[in-house]
Amino acid sequence: MTAQLYCFGESGNAYKAALTMELSGYDWEPVWVDFFGGAQRKPEFLAINEMGEAPVMVEGDLTLTQSSVIMLHVAGKTGKFLDGDRNEILRWLFWDGQKGTGQQGALRFLMNFIPAEKRPQEAIGFLNGRVQAALKTLEAHLAGRSWMVGETTTLADLACCGYLYYPEPFGFDRKDFPAIDAWLDRIAALPGWKHPYDLMPGRPSDRGL
Amino acid sequence: MTAQLYCFGESGNAYKAALTMELSGYDWEPVWVDFFGGAQRKPEFLAINEMGEAPVMVEGDLTLTQSSVIMLHVAGKTGKFLDGDRNEILRWLFWDGQKGTGQQGALRFLMNFIPAEKRPQEAIGFLNGRVQAALKTLEAHLAGRSWMVGETTTLADLACCGYLYYPEPFGFDRKDFPAIDAWLDRIAALPGWKHPYDLMPGRPSDRGL
Repeated sequence: MTAQLYCFGESGNAYKAALTMELSGYDWEPVWVDFFGGAQRKPEFLAINEMGEAPVMVEGDLTLTQSSVIMLHVAGKTGKFLDGDRNEILRWLFWDGQKGTGQQGALRFLMNFIPAEKRPQEAIGFLNGRVQAALKTLEAHLAGRSWMVGETTTLADLACCGYLYYPEPFGFDRKDFPAIDAWLDRIAALPGWKHPYDLMPGRPSDRGL
Repeated sequence: MTAQLYCFGESGNAYKAALTMELSGYDWEPVWVDFFGGAQRKPEFLAINEMGEAPVMVEGDLTLTQSSVIMLHVAGKTGKFLDGDRNEILRWLFWDGQKGTGQQGALRFLMNFIPAEKRPQEAIGFLNGRVQAALKTLEAHLAGRSWMVGETTTLADLACCGYLYYPEPFGFDRKDFPAIDAWLDRIAALPGWKHPYDLMPGRPSDRGL
């Protein structure tokens, strides 16, 4: 049975789930969500996810939302990306949801996907401070390690990299974070790895950006 | 063995873990973290949690961080608060970490715990918009239900209520959210329930606020 992942290329949260499926050899296909057209706030979308968020995975009778829940489901079925201390993997999934991708996604949205004259500069500054603090935590954790948890790739890696391959500015410059930079290269060298814009439909140039 | 929970009364994230332990009859004791004195950024705290965050649970050789990881550990050992679809419980834990307590905590901090003249009003407005949207999602979910998942109290309830009993303003007025209001009364009626300021050491009046 082919799982459908409701997603869009600009979403690092969707990328976390899509990348886990792709690197696991999972049977999946993307279904584009017109996020910038407000599809996630329409009744037909809210009927599959009352949270009004992508990604959503539909697999037969099963509907799952929240990227980390989808990742844990896929990993549980394939046995991949779960080697290592489960509590350590989980704590990075939770940390990433709040402090990592959770904040990076909001900052990147404000800095790129609303008209320049409407960008709230003080809110951007506030969020940027929080994003930088979290990136420092990630950098310190990765210094001297190859992977987030244990000796191999786990869901913690596939979560924490969610927004870090995107080219649009959001306060993250790889040269400022050498341990993160090397780790992103390691993830990108995994067989089957794809950039978010190559893995999911939708990219800013589709909207003339 | 008595588990030690590094926490402080003002932290809704610590409250999630403390409340789970208390309502489960878990053997635990609080250890006050001087968050407002910056203890979480000092080397001795970073040695137990590189994320620089409370809560942290230390139980013998085991150190756990992230409130939801502690909650899942406690629930796994006691068998309590896990009845119901595990994916549903998990998705609300992840949702709450990002959209619920994650944002409410930041907003409440900015609106109450920094000097009035330094409060960043645009950032507060931005965060308030996001907090209101999440509260609407929670209100819609709870309308016509007694509990977040299934027919009884689960970790999803103990997570999503994390900041909602605090008296300090952060854009949440119970009368505007009748389903949340009734649900908070249900949680507060559970045997052994305590308000965060009665469950953990530290409250604003200790700092003259």
